[in-house]
Amino acid sequence: MGNKVTTAIKPTREEDYPMWYQEVVKASEMAEKSSVRGCMVIRPWGYALWENMVAQLDSMFKATGVKNAYFPLFIPLSYLEREAEHVEGFAKECAVVTHHKLEQGENGRLVPAGELAEPLIVRPTSETIIGESMSRWISSYRDLPLLLNQWANVVRWEMRTRIFLRTSEFLWQEGHTAHATEQEARERTYQMLEVYTKFVEEYLAMPVIRGYKSDSERFPGAVETTCIEAMMQDKKALQAGTSHFLGQNFARGSNIRFQDGDGNEQFAWTTSWGVSTRMIGGMIMIHGDDDGVIMPPRVAPAHVVLLPIFKNDEERSMVMEYVDSLARELGDIPYKNRPGLVVEIDDRDTGGARGWDWIKKGIPVRAEIGPKDIEKGAVFAARRDESPKVRKSISRGDFVGGIVDMLEDIQANLYKKALEFQRANTFEMDDKNKFYDFYTSSGKGIHGGFAMAHWCRSRECESAIKEDLSVTIRCIPFDSREEEGKCICCGTKSPGRVLFAKAY
Amino acid sequence: MGNKVTTAIKPTREEDYPMWYQEVVKASEMAEKSSVRGCMVIRPWGYALWENMVAQLDSMFKATGVKNAYFPLFIPLSYLEREAEHVEGFAKECAVVTHHKLEQGENGRLVPAGELAEPLIVRPTSETIIGESMSRWISSYRDLPLLLNQWANVVRWEMRTRIFLRTSEFLWQEGHTAHATEQEARERTYQMLEVYTKFVEEYLAMPVIRGYKSDSERFPGAVETTCIEAMMQDKKALQAGTSHFLGQNFARGSNIRFQDGDGNEQFAWTTSWGVSTRMIGGMIMIHGDDDGVIMPPRVAPAHVVLLPIFKNDEERSMVMEYVDSLARELGDIPYKNRPGLVVEIDDRDTGGARGWDWIKKGIPVRAEIGPKDIEKGAVFAARRDESPKVRKSISRGDFVGGIVDMLEDIQANLYKKALEFQRANTFEMDDKNKFYDFYTSSGKGIHGGFAMAHWCRSRECESAIKEDLSVTIRCIPFDSREEEGKCICCGTKSPGRVLFAKAY
Repeated sequence: MGNKVTTAIKPTREEDYPMWYQEVVKASEMAEKSSVRGCMVIRPWGYALWENMVAQLDSMFKATGVKNAYFPLFIPLSYLEREAEHVEGFAKECAVVTHHKLEQGENGRLVPAGELAEPLIVRPTSETIIGESMSRWISSYRDLPLLLNQWANVVRWEMRTRIFLRTSEFLWQEGHTAHATEQEARERTYQMLEVYTKFVEEYLAMPVIRGYKSDSERFPGAVETTCIEAMMQDKKALQAGTSHFLGQNFARGSNIRFQDGDGNEQFAWTTSWGVSTRMIGGMIMIHGDDDGVIMPPRVAPAHVVLLPIFKNDEERSMVMEYVDSLARELGDIPYKNRPGLVVEIDDRDTGGARGWDWIKKGIPVRAEIGPKDIEKGAVFAARRDESPKVRKSISRGDFVGGIVDMLEDIQANLYKKALEFQRANTFEMDDKNKFYDFYTSSGKGIHGGFAMAHWCRSRECESAIKEDLSVTIRCIPFDSREEEGKCICCGTKSPGRVLFAKAY
Repeated sequence: MGNKVTTAIKPTREEDYPMWYQEVVKASEMAEKSSVRGCMVIRPWGYALWENMVAQLDSMFKATGVKNAYFPLFIPLSYLEREAEHVEGFAKECAVVTHHKLEQGENGRLVPAGELAEPLIVRPTSETIIGESMSRWISSYRDLPLLLNQWANVVRWEMRTRIFLRTSEFLWQEGHTAHATEQEARERTYQMLEVYTKFVEEYLAMPVIRGYKSDSERFPGAVETTCIEAMMQDKKALQAGTSHFLGQNFARGSNIRFQDGDGNEQFAWTTSWGVSTRMIGGMIMIHGDDDGVIMPPRVAPAHVVLLPIFKNDEERSMVMEYVDSLARELGDIPYKNRPGLVVEIDDRDTGGARGWDWIKKGIPVRAEIGPKDIEKGAVFAARRDESPKVRKSISRGDFVGGIVDMLEDIQANLYKKALEFQRANTFEMDDKNKFYDFYTSSGKGIHGGFAMAHWCRSRECESAIKEDLSVTIRCIPFDSREEEGKCICCGTKSPGRVLFAKAY
């Protein structure tokens, strides 16, 4: 019909998904690249989201008996050498501290001085340094289980960075637990993956597929890595959380031993599990549209923005009085784990740009209020999950009385839409040619989808597909049914389907 | 009377205060030294205290309009050179990252590789890096004030470390604000010092003296540094928080400019303010006794520990049922900003050691419950601010009904005791000999006290006293009365008294 729709974000998702992501993040003022290589600045609107995510996850961890602690930022180089496989996976790209002071150099500029006898690594993850403490704290089965978590910054030197998705420094939590038995440690591994699943699905409104990683995708040093994988709107997968069963590997490396009930000395069984600011990137990519970010209400930095409209000082004082009292009323309404709704009032005089700013930021509900609305005792409300054009006059009473339902409806819609998209783009595949077509024939920045296909479990087939298509085994789903078949790559016998996709 | 009292901590405060502190921290399981030079491990009991402190402070900051954000851990070396005085103060001892990977060296060991073109400094404080962002975010007076805060880890390489009090890595918050006018920035400086004062006095139960730092004790690069100073039980001062008016110095260094209402370009006026895990050390030193830590109830990691007593399985099941129901009942009682009291149940079979463990940890209230107590419908309760011998049988109803009052009474007592101690050890001094005696004649690890004495405002006198006595000017108190006098050091004219003390 030639009816060109104007969108707030250029390019659109369809035009250039990777660039759309960068623009969405920028327009939302959630974060930006810093001039420090590979590091990001998380701005107040992005950090408030992270604070809400942290608060919710933290209470879920604590409900399972986990306690928080804090361990050093620096790891002595020698610690990393204790667990060979772990080092192989992490030591390659990390920030190395070699000096402990600065001095005036010959040209008057500052230069590093005071070389350390042993270099220190800025933690890429803390298994080794927490293991060192655990080895001192644990001596008897009575000291077990030991259930620790740390909220921290970590650094993994990255050459190509994207805000939230891959940055040299990022924020995360890392849980570390030690147990007397293998079974208990395995159960804890799954328990924490369930916590992540519940959080990501119920709070971030992101449907996920749970499963085991293949040997080659496992955490370095782990016996088993479990994960949750979500589908972005470009049909690529994003790993939203991992939970590792470490067996006795790290306990051996860090000498975490305990005396069991019979007086025998044993190595403990450990787990670790983590989620990071990367989840924010996933949340943006799964829900965002061509007008910007869409915040799931249960984690949104703010729930409602009130946009007063007035032409002169007289109108202004009347409108602001109404707006302020409405804000107070909304602020007293509890919502999920928050004591009251968070309400923003934006009284800038910027014409239409003001409303678009909040659309780009993804606030769940906008409400314009002018003299005519007040006369009617109403507000002119809009939901972020609907088109910017859809705005309805709602009586103040209905708006206040129905706001929690509206927010929960938005939350449910976001999840439903994402789940439908994931399902519509997940296919069982049995033909190698079709599989290869699936991942090569798609448009710019769009990547086939999820393929549930048979795999013989060989590293060779996994590598061949990765090399040919940049497609990896995201996981062996927990709920994949037992079904004999033929490997999508080599045609030999396979015990069941696994999830293939391109991935972030 | 020769009645030797046994204490849980050896040595006692009187015998060796510095060693007492180390032992108290260790016995409380709040934190410990790590094997990483100068860094500490904050254990769950210490970290839960920090979490409560953070939650309270954070809500107080936000109530003044401050928003949280997060800035990079690393600061490029060149940034530090932008503000000369600042560099002089901070660049000396810091962690310097010079490489971004590790490689296998000739001997098979890992060695640093990938040298950075420009070394990165692990932030000792973030004025320079936050200034860089502010310069991009601020262009008009409409963007001001910009009120930011960051919760983060920072590193200042320290040669001699003491847990919480001085560690190479520590946790803190740093507030950074930019304003259009000098007056507004000065007001913000004082406003945040008032927030700190309220928090430290009302939550940590630490009475403080507010004032200005002398020129030589100012934050490097600041125009004015305000601070709060508390008296520890060894009569030394501990700086518990600082708030700096930075004038336009940092705005010049970071190029933070804005267009004012008349279209003229100006440099912004900035402030910064911070408190750290150091406050925990102060809290331990001001309230602790020879039996260990005493936690102020309003920030305590837990409020009540229930200690079930039983001789056999039958008694056990009966007692535990009672204890569990009591714990639930207490857990539903809101206290200050917490939705319910935090209750620990310790059912370990360790005889007397169990009760002492909780005394050393400083939990405000202990309650023993055995079959006889249950028969009477009572608990056998003890308060941490009273002698370990004082335990009273209280009916369950009175205990539950009176617990909040009991906690608030403990809170008030701690503050009152600390204030009385501070007042009893603060003296106006006008005689140089007496002043010198005051700081030289005291016992092991005990350090005179606070002296309010006249000072001519010269650096020479300040230095002489510091050199002779290791006594510094802690602050020029806000509330010191105008009074002409003679400098305690040189005898020349002085405009008023200042606070002298030995300090942490």
